[in-house]
Amino acid sequence: MENGSLKKWRFQGNKALTTSSGFTVRAVLDSLRENLNVNDPRPTIPLGHGDPSAFPCFRTATEAEDAIVDAIRSAKYNHYPPTAGLLPARRAVAEYLNRDLPYKLSPDDVFLTLGCIQAIEVILTSLTHPGANILFPRPGFPYYESLAAHIHLEVRHFDLLPEKGWEVDLDAVEALVDENTVAMVIVNPGNPCGSVYTRQHLQKDAEIYLKTARNLGILVIADEVYEHLAFGSTPYVPMGVFGSIVPVVTLGSISKRWIVPGWRLGWVIADSIKGFLNISSDPITFVQGALPQILEKTKEGFFSKIIDILRKDSDIGYDKITEIPCITCPNKPEGGMFMMVKLNVSLLEGINDDMDFALQLAKEESVVVLPGIAVGMKNWLRVTFAIDPSMLEEGFERMKSFCQRHAKKQ
Amino acid sequence: MENGSLKKWRFQGNKALTTSSGFTVRAVLDSLRENLNVNDPRPTIPLGHGDPSAFPCFRTATEAEDAIVDAIRSAKYNHYPPTAGLLPARRAVAEYLNRDLPYKLSPDDVFLTLGCIQAIEVILTSLTHPGANILFPRPGFPYYESLAAHIHLEVRHFDLLPEKGWEVDLDAVEALVDENTVAMVIVNPGNPCGSVYTRQHLQKDAEIYLKTARNLGILVIADEVYEHLAFGSTPYVPMGVFGSIVPVVTLGSISKRWIVPGWRLGWVIADSIKGFLNISSDPITFVQGALPQILEKTKEGFFSKIIDILRKDSDIGYDKITEIPCITCPNKPEGGMFMMVKLNVSLLEGINDDMDFALQLAKEESVVVLPGIAVGMKNWLRVTFAIDPSMLEEGFERMKSFCQRHAKKQ
Ligand SMILES: Cc1ncc(COP(=O)(O)O)c(C=O)c1O
Ligand SMILES: Cc1ncc(COP(=O)(O)O)c(C=O)c1O
Repeated sequence: MENGSLKKWRFQGNKALTTSSGFTVRAVLDSLRENLNVNDPRPTIPLGHGDPSAFPCFRTATEAEDAIVDAIRSAKYNHYPPTAGLLPARRAVAEYLNRDLPYKLSPDDVFLTLGCIQAIEVILTSLTHPGANILFPRPGFPYYESLAAHIHLEVRHFDLLPEKGWEVDLDAVEALVDENTVAMVIVNPGNPCGSVYTRQHLQKDAEIYLKTARNLGILVIADEVYEHLAFGSTPYVPMGVFGSIVPVVTLGSISKRWIVPGWRLGWVIADSIKGFLNISSDPITFVQGALPQILEKTKEGFFSKIIDILRKDSDIGYDKITEIPCITCPNKPEGGMFMMVKLNVSLLEGINDDMDFALQLAKEESVVVLPGIAVGMKNWLRVTFAIDPSMLEEGFERMKSFCQRHAKKQ
Repeated sequence: MENGSLKKWRFQGNKALTTSSGFTVRAVLDSLRENLNVNDPRPTIPLGHGDPSAFPCFRTATEAEDAIVDAIRSAKYNHYPPTAGLLPARRAVAEYLNRDLPYKLSPDDVFLTLGCIQAIEVILTSLTHPGANILFPRPGFPYYESLAAHIHLEVRHFDLLPEKGWEVDLDAVEALVDENTVAMVIVNPGNPCGSVYTRQHLQKDAEIYLKTARNLGILVIADEVYEHLAFGSTPYVPMGVFGSIVPVVTLGSISKRWIVPGWRLGWVIADSIKGFLNISSDPITFVQGALPQILEKTKEGFFSKIIDILRKDSDIGYDKITEIPCITCPNKPEGGMFMMVKLNVSLLEGINDDMDFALQLAKEESVVVLPGIAVGMKNWLRVTFAIDPSMLEEGFERMKSFCQRHAKKQ
């Protein structure tokens, strides 16, 4: 039948796409999951990807659920989504972001996208041209690399410095920029580092930009998908605050703060991208219809509850790691859902690198963590702490016994 | 601020994309809408695009609304959507389509997409390679052309024959196929022709395929987004019925039959496209979660009510056209939401072609129709009849007075 017989026909799949999707976190996690021991009676502990929505304690706000139900029951949002988004939804995003800005965005500055993923796609595809290059942080969010490869945009990496709280290596940025550089990307709060940049550091980013890049006309792309998920001592400041001295394109979504990544609603704050948006897909109309209610009605209590759980989680993770000799966490996470953990393989027997560690950990302990290599840092691990706190404890306990079992005999 | 200042920077938009999106129906309709007279107190009558969801008589099934509400309230579908789709949703699509097939699809054959639009994108992008060509019907659904241009897939057109009920010109297909042809596309029920192909004609398509193309290994892509919207004498038969003699890839969605294009849920029935799907966006998780209930629970009464309205609409359109000398409809529509109407400009004063006709009609009568040139047929019009029946009558009344006013004096 249809199934199977296609292979005989001229149906080969698109090689370029298959290859570039090999970079995705999803592909690495899939191979780890294949390595899980199906006979382990314990639940698998998913520390590999950032999606806490399945845990009851991370259930989204009632106001957000109500907003969707109201939108559906109104029968007003079954039509095709308009390009760029419904006006009331775009206005609601502008007003939501304006709470933290010293100036006013208008609905015309807002383009709704299928999550922040499509926001990244829209902006990078709009910027690319033959010979162009772009600056990404390392470690970073690998979808950027995957997409850049796909659209033939040259990538140059600047390091985030663990010894400086994962701040941007400003000297590196200066050295990398040239006349073909179209933009630099800053992710704040950070994935995968759990860093929250101080106003001073963001200002320095803006200044380095002024010093090196202004005349070259590059943009700062501020990926703020984790906006407001800050639970340490550093308050969250959006890059747009420096919008008067630097051209900032802000990317965001409701995926993280409302814990609804499956709703696929994000945004780009910029103009001039209508040409691209015209051919692209748009977010579901009734989620757009629900957006004003979601952004305006969600009570502070929901947000602070989530922040409290994330803070508790980050405490658990940080403390547990001190009990495990072969891993260290140089910076306690202050935001987002991830932490970077350094692996000392020289303390382990028969484990050569981070990939090895992740594969064996999955097999023996049913704990999934992402090898750092997938985010550009060999022999580190990316661990999400945004899961149910008791499961997180259990996950680190298992990691501890795994490390004890594989510790090199002195 | 962000707004405006970007133009100074190296932000030019992606030229290729802007150009290819110039082909979209959306772009043509936008320019017609700009031509509307804002001082006309009468409501605009939208006969240009196929989206009846705004009309109360076309409100979707209660069962479908309930399914979404249940999915949201369950809080089980807020997570990231899995590649290819949730298993229960894919199983529900397989079972839904199996009702009309002589064999059984399995959930593994089903890939969920963001509407049928993304289904088209997925399959064409998977098939293309340097030098490849594809056969499209003329007139057709212009998104195909737009996408093919974007992915550099050469397009060859075969005609649909108005004198034969818009059947495929089989001789043309024979002449067009060569060793670089990857597929031919058949849209049934037809957009823009309102045709429903008989089992005999589909069988002939399959046979011509066997005669000319089998050894070349091309696919038949059956765009069945209007599946089951047949209200004339010809019953709807899916191309998959001939799946044992021809390799068929079926594309569909809930957009048309359930009148929920804003929900963005479609499907591709084929295997081997996982490589591409991995990098692409997926449909909203909770719409996937709702899908089994939508497909299984919607009552026959809803479908037959919609079919009755469409039949009434097609009667109104067909009858009204006979009262207007400068336009004729060679085939009464039997399915879908559109009809092709032939324009005789020689009977009109000061109107040179279909684009002219559409622009002036919009301006003078606040009626929007799509010029045939946008679907590959100069001096035809594509008219959707899938709107509120009384508005449809009014639309044709206005068209009648427009044509009378512009009739050439004998
Ligand atoms: C840094 C970063 N940007 C963008 C995204 C994608 O966000 P969304 O789920 O809204 O598409 C993620 C998701 O994990 C992310 O970590
Ligand atoms: C022939 C054809 N294919 C595909 C589509 C797109 O369908 P969807 O709304 O499910 O993306 C349409 C929409 O009008 C269509 O007419």
